[in-house]
Order: sequence, then structure tokens, then C-alpha cells
Amino acid sequence: MTEVEAKKPQESLQDRLAQVVELLHRQKIVEDLAYRQGIGQPQELIDNLEHRQNLVELQRKLEALHPADVAYILEALPLDDRLTVWQLVKSERDGDILLEVSDAVRETLIADMDDHEILAAAKDLDADELADLAAELPRDVVHELMETLDAQQRERVRSALSYEEDQVGALMDFEMVTIREDVSLEVVLRYLRRLKELPGHTDKLFVVDYDGVLKGVLPIKRLLVNDPEKQVAEVMANDPVTFHPDEDAYEAAQAFERYDLVSTPVVDKGGKLIGRLTIDEMVDLIREESESEVLNMAGLREEEDIFASVWKSLRNRWAWLALNLITAFVASRVIGLFDGSIEKLVALAALMPIVAGIGGNSGNQTITMIVRAMALDQMGTGNGFRLLRKEAGVGLLNGLIWGGVIGLVVYWLYGSWSLGVVMTAAMTLNLLLAALMGVLIPVTLARMGRDPALGSSVMITAVTDSGGFFIFLGLATLFLL
Amino acid sequence: MTEVEAKKPQESLQDRLAQVVELLHRQKIVEDLAYRQGIGQPQELIDNLEHRQNLVELQRKLEALHPADVAYILEALPLDDRLTVWQLVKSERDGDILLEVSDAVRETLIADMDDHEILAAAKDLDADELADLAAELPRDVVHELMETLDAQQRERVRSALSYEEDQVGALMDFEMVTIREDVSLEVVLRYLRRLKELPGHTDKLFVVDYDGVLKGVLPIKRLLVNDPEKQVAEVMANDPVTFHPDEDAYEAAQAFERYDLVSTPVVDKGGKLIGRLTIDEMVDLIREESESEVLNMAGLREEEDIFASVWKSLRNRWAWLALNLITAFVASRVIGLFDGSIEKLVALAALMPIVAGIGGNSGNQTITMIVRAMALDQMGTGNGFRLLRKEAGVGLLNGLIWGGVIGLVVYWLYGSWSLGVVMTAAMTLNLLLAALMGVLIPVTLARMGRDPALGSSVMITAVTDSGGFFIFLGLATLFLL
Repeated sequence: MTEVEAKKPQESLQDRLAQVVELLHRQKIVEDLAYRQGIGQPQELIDNLEHRQNLVELQRKLEALHPADVAYILEALPLDDRLTVWQLVKSERDGDILLEVSDAVRETLIADMDDHEILAAAKDLDADELADLAAELPRDVVHELMETLDAQQRERVRSALSYEEDQVGALMDFEMVTIREDVSLEVVLRYLRRLKELPGHTDKLFVVDYDGVLKGVLPIKRLLVNDPEKQVAEVMANDPVTFHPDEDAYEAAQAFERYDLVSTPVVDKGGKLIGRLTIDEMVDLIREESESEVLNMAGLREEEDIFASVWKSLRNRWAWLALNLITAFVASRVIGLFDGSIEKLVALAALMPIVAGIGGNSGNQTITMIVRAMALDQMGTGNGFRLLRKEAGVGLLNGLIWGGVIGLVVYWLYGSWSLGVVMTAAMTLNLLLAALMGVLIPVTLARMGRDPALGSSVMITAVTDSGGFFIFLGLATLFLL
Repeated sequence: MTEVEAKKPQESLQDRLAQVVELLHRQKIVEDLAYRQGIGQPQELIDNLEHRQNLVELQRKLEALHPADVAYILEALPLDDRLTVWQLVKSERDGDILLEVSDAVRETLIADMDDHEILAAAKDLDADELADLAAELPRDVVHELMETLDAQQRERVRSALSYEEDQVGALMDFEMVTIREDVSLEVVLRYLRRLKELPGHTDKLFVVDYDGVLKGVLPIKRLLVNDPEKQVAEVMANDPVTFHPDEDAYEAAQAFERYDLVSTPVVDKGGKLIGRLTIDEMVDLIREESESEVLNMAGLREEEDIFASVWKSLRNRWAWLALNLITAFVASRVIGLFDGSIEKLVALAALMPIVAGIGGNSGNQTITMIVRAMALDQMGTGNGFRLLRKEAGVGLLNGLIWGGVIGLVVYWLYGSWSLGVVMTAAMTLNLLLAALMGVLIPVTLARMGRDPALGSSVMITAVTDSGGFFIFLGLATLFLL
């Protein structure tokens, strides 16, 4: 990737987006006009002066933008406008921009490119960047790309592709400056001056021996403040944070966050330096992790291009809806068990959703707490029982307080003390159930080796719905009828 | 803050936590024993050899840890163990550790310190770090602290405190290396060597004129690869990304993410350099933002210490529960309107939660999409109508598909075609309502200048619950009875 120095935007991103949209609209009016005047044929349209001027102005605007800003604009445009802009972008910038857009939008852009264009876009990318894109490129294009690479680069792409998406190996890059420990800082400074430029996020140089085994790191800060006569070995940090390529990338990201790192070496089992992790990749990972948490909680399978077709959106959303439908159906059957009771006392039908709803809300509060504690590794040191006790306490108190309030309201509305008491009791029991399951569900999912965040919200709601209906209607049947 | 070089942990964090917990438990057994043997008095206990050995080992373990790791362990311990560990931490590290823990845990630690200890912990902190802690420290301690500072430091703390938590000014630090543009790189290198150490995250030096106005930045990378004879002015970047102290900090974080920045200057209206933003603060902010989104979606007011008392948890959670109770009550009243219909056809009571539940789930999917698009500034360029149309399309299709499936199941269960058709129609209408409100609620909240994420999930559920009951029971009353 050719590194682009970010410049202070003269206008905010929204302003620049608005300008592009404005130009696109002007463009459409011109096309419309040309079409109505009967000069809608491609050649004639291109001859149209105003049309051409518009395109030139748009292209000029796009050229002044950082690839990440172009990516942002592409994300914010509906498909037809998005492709108009995409075609105006200079082909040598295509690769950098493809790296910046979301997966969903990248798919729409690649679908619009022919093999030749894809090859041109990919040819200036680094091995790790190629590996990032490879999964979404046509298979024969990837094959052709690999042939153009030298042996080292090809090996690097293969290596990056051999790791799972969530492993350190898939996120590392290979742009590193390595030095020897038995030279002076002066020599290092002279060596750096011979390089045309340093890789982005170079806050430390990696010290390796003749076999490529990592001996330590030389922070640039130390290089700058120490006497140039000193040897690297005297100044370097001997025991830096390192990662293995098969480690969990998210744990690496947490280490970056915890220790305020900018870059770290990645070494293999033998201690040989094979790559580097940088903070920019880690920030993206942190962002993605928390986004997927939000998406999963809302029952979306993955990130969705906001202008995705109705059909694509359906596919992204159907799984959770179907699951929800099944759990709602189960809850419905639970109610069906008490048909007779509801016929005798129709107020039960109106009150039962309150019991179920509060249980779901409270259960989700508990589960969010627990999932978060698990994500931060704060669980699993025998704290489970203590947390269960606390959550049960919260549930009990909430049940007595809010159940009591609702019980009074029910008495006031329906004039029946016993109905009020049943309501209070049902709410308290359902909140206790919510607390219990709010702790047990994520803990059990984790024990089974599954992601405790994924689907736990749907499960707790299923339990508190069916459970709430059963508890309330059951108590009412026992004590009121 | 004294900078601590992060070292590669020999064991994972969990292992180290487990070791501390193990030592704490051993400790407790000794205390128990001592108590049972009647030597439970403080002085006698301290004389107990085993007890003392344990404490020494624990202290040794803690000393070897990075402040962030000690913070992690404090977060993961129940209150009594947490305070035992906290008292063992050397007082000169207290300040650094306080900066690393979450607000909720920080409160418990500060509550355990007397004024003298707080003063000792805070005295080595930088101005921006002091400002971070100030809100949670006792007022008279802050006053006393301010008196110990020199005029410049005091001014900086005041300045940092004068900004809102979500403004750039509250997050900037003041540790910067500034240089002049009319010197050679050689001079800069010599100047740096005279400094004992460089501030963390120094990836660029700030070039200022004699009035302190920012002229550009000199990336360290350029300093290292360019000929030392060159002037700073030839090599520096003239047009760097800068921020004003009153800008939104989250937008700054997005710029860091987008442009892969490590540090940026903060300038006042006149272009004068007043501070610096660094990636570590931005990462924390990104993490906090997405966490508060998750917490709000789940109906938690703020981050909660997992070992918070039941009482504290109640306070953190009651507001959303109360709101939920009110919306559930409204839905209950809607059902109450159709008492007569349910009495005649009790199947309605069992089926109505399905309609409401699916509407809520689908509405939450839509709202999450829209809120996300708004957070990324992808809305507001006349896309609203287009999105509404798409979401309505998704809702319509989902209604016909899943409503059709449920309609068939209802026919099979209850043997009534008309009940099945009413079910399908109600589900379709409620999904359309969910799509409509899923777009309108966040857009309206944003127009009113409110955070569209906050509470929109509760609102959509309220609408789809009450709306779903009304639509289903209304259709049934019209067509079936």
C-alpha cells in the first residue's frame, strides 16, 4: 500500500459527502434531459459538455480525498450512485479503497469489476492486504495474482491465508525493520537513512540474530534519546510483548489496549520473527468485535450494507426471526395449556404480557453484565455462585418492588386482592428465573465452547416468556379459580 | 505517569489472576485458623508467620505486574479481596492503577483510601491524568492537590476540567516535543538526545513558531530517513490533521481510526498548539462508546462493577425496568380493550404474543441498522425515503412468508381458515409497522437532538407490542366474531 499522509479535511466528511451527492444529482438531471431530448445514446451523452464537466469536477473532488474517505462515501451511497463514483476513481487507488470498505460494500464493488480491473487494483498491495481480499475475489483472479508474485510474497500470502480470521496470523503484516544487536545506534541511524521510507506504525525496530530469532526490540524513542555510540544490545528491551500466529487476535487486541502498544513482533514457536501486529489492525478488530456484539444482540447475522437489496436483507435476518418465531410459538402453546383459566378470568390474558416482558428485560440486563464480565475474563475463578446470589438478590428485590406496584395497580383496576397478590408473586418468581437463567445460560454456552454472546438474548427471552406465562397462569389457576 | 515498558507475560492474565486468588484463599484459611485459635487480634495475626509469608508472596507477585494487569485483577475480585490486594500495592503505583480501572471499581478503591493516601497517589500524575480523576476525588483533596502544582500545571488541570467529557479538550494530554522549522534535522536529533525520554506515542514532533502557532508536524519516520543536513521546514508535513479542544472526541476517534493516526496536535482557534491526542485514549473511547451502546440496548444505565452491591445494581437498572413496566402496562390496557373478543375466542390470547414478539424482533433489526448508519453518518442525504421503502419491502416479505407459515400452523392447530388468515394479515401489518417505526424513531430522536441509540429499542418494542395486540385483536374482532 502506498502510504497516504492524512491531511486535515477542509470540510467535514458529511460536507464532502453532500458535495458528491449534489454532483451526482446534477449529473442525473443532465442525463434525464439528454434522454428526453432523444440524445440518450452513450456516445452522444459523452459529447454533452455539461455532463462531461460534471464528471470532471466529481473526479477532481474524489482525487483529493483519502482512500478511507472515498470508502466512507461509497458506503453512504445507494448502489447506482455508488458504482458511478467507483468508476470515476483512478484504478491505482482501487486496491487501497477496497481494503477500507466493509465486506458487504466490497462485494458490490468487486461484482462491478472485470478480472482485468481487479488484477490492476490488487497488484500494488502487500501480501497481508492481498490475503485480506482474497476470500472475496474470483478464484481464477486469485490464482493469476499469485503467479505474478515472487516466491517470498507468495509464501506470505499463503501463510496469512492458512490462519483463521480470528488468529493473529491472519492480521499480521510483514513490513518490518530488523537490525542486529552488535551494532551501534549510529549504524542503525545510518541504515535507516538508506531506506526510502519506514513502514507505517514503526515505533520500534526488531532486533534479530543471524537465524532470524527475535532477541529484543529497540523502541525508536530509545534510539533517539540515547548516545549514538552505544550498542543496540545495551539499549534494547530484552523481553518485549510478542505473539504467536495461532494466538487469538482479540486477546492480542486487548493486550494492545492494556499496554498501550503501537506495534509488536509476531514470532513462531522457535522464537523466529515472522511478522508484526500494528495498532490500526487492532482498532479495527475492537470495533468489529463490539459491532458484531450489537448486531447479534439485535438478531442480525452480519453487518449489512444499508442499501442492500430486500432479498439480501431477508437472508441476513431470517435466521433469528425464524428462531424467534419458534420460541414465540412455544410460549403460545404454554398459554394454550391454560385456555380454560383464561376463559373463566379474561383479565389474565391482559396481565400475562407484563409478567413476561419484565422478566425478559431484567434477564437481558443480567445476561449483558455476565457476558461482559466473561469477555473481560473476570469470571471462572469461583465467582459464579457469588454472582448468582447477587443477581438473585436484585431479582427478588425488583420483583417485590415492581411486582408490588403492579399488584396494587391490578387491585385498583380489577378490584381483586387475590389477583394482585398472584401478579406480585408471579413477577417475583419470573424475575428470579430471569436472574438464574441470566447467569446460567452464558456460563453454560461458554462451557460448551460456544460464544456466550451469540443468541443468549434470544434464549433468555424465550425462557422468561414461556416461564412467565406458565408461572402467572399456573398460580392463577391454582389460587384464583 | 512514569512509563512502564510492557513485558511479555510469562503466564496468561487468567493464570496470574488465579495465582492471586489462590494466595488470597490461603490467606483467608490462615486468618480463619488464627481466629479460631483465639489469636484474631490484628497485632497477633501479623505476628503469625505463615500469614506474613503469604502477604509477602502476594506483594511480590503484584509488584511484577504492569499497572493495567493489577487493575484487571482488582476488577475481577469481590470487594473484600479487592481491598486486601489494593492495600498491598505500593502507594507510588496507586495513581497509575486508579487510571486503569473502570469508574465503578475506582469508586470502591478511592472510598477505601484516606486523604493522605489519595494525595500520595496523585502527586506523580500528569495534569491530564489528574483531571481524569478529579471528578471522583473528595473536593478538599482536589483543592489541596491543586495547591501543590505549579502555575502551568494548575492551568492545564483547570483547562482539561473546563471541557465536557465527550470533548477533545477533556482527553488531550500536554506531553509534547515541539521544535522550530528553521533548524536542521541534525539539530533536532541532538535536541532529542538531550531529553531524558520522549513522551509515549511520540510518532511526530510538533513544529511551532515563536508564538506557539502550529506550522506543521515532523513525523519521526521522516526525521529518521532524511538527510540530517535538511531543514525541518523542507521535511515536515504542512497540513496535518488537527483538532480543536471543543470538537467531539468521538469524531476525533473516528478520524484516528480512518487515517490510522498515532498522535495529533490540538490547536486553539488561533492555531496555537495547546495539547495532543494519542491513539491509546482514542482506543479507550471507541471501546467505551460501543460498550455503552450494548449496555443501553440491554437497559443498563452504565457500566456496573460485577461485584457491586445489590443496592447499587438496583439503582443502575431501575430506570429502564420502570420504563419497560409502563410500556408493558400500556400494552396490557390495549388487550383489555378486547376482553369480550378473548372471552368468545380464547385462542386469541394464546396467539397474540406471537404477533407482538415477531414485530419486536424485526423492529429491533431495522432500528439497529439505522442507528448504525446514523453513527457512521451515512444518513441524512435524502436517503431516508429510500431506506423506508427497503425496510417496508423486507417487512412485507417477512410478513407474507413467516405470517403464512404461522397461518398454516394456526389452521392445523385450531381448524379455522379464517383465524389463520387473520394471523397472517396481523403479522404482515405489524411487521410493516415495525419497519416504519424502526426508521422513524431513530430519525426523529436525532432531529430532536437526542442520541438515536438511547432507548430506541425500548420504544420500538413498546410500539410493536401495543400495535401488534391492537392489530391482531382488532382484525379478529372485525372478521371472526
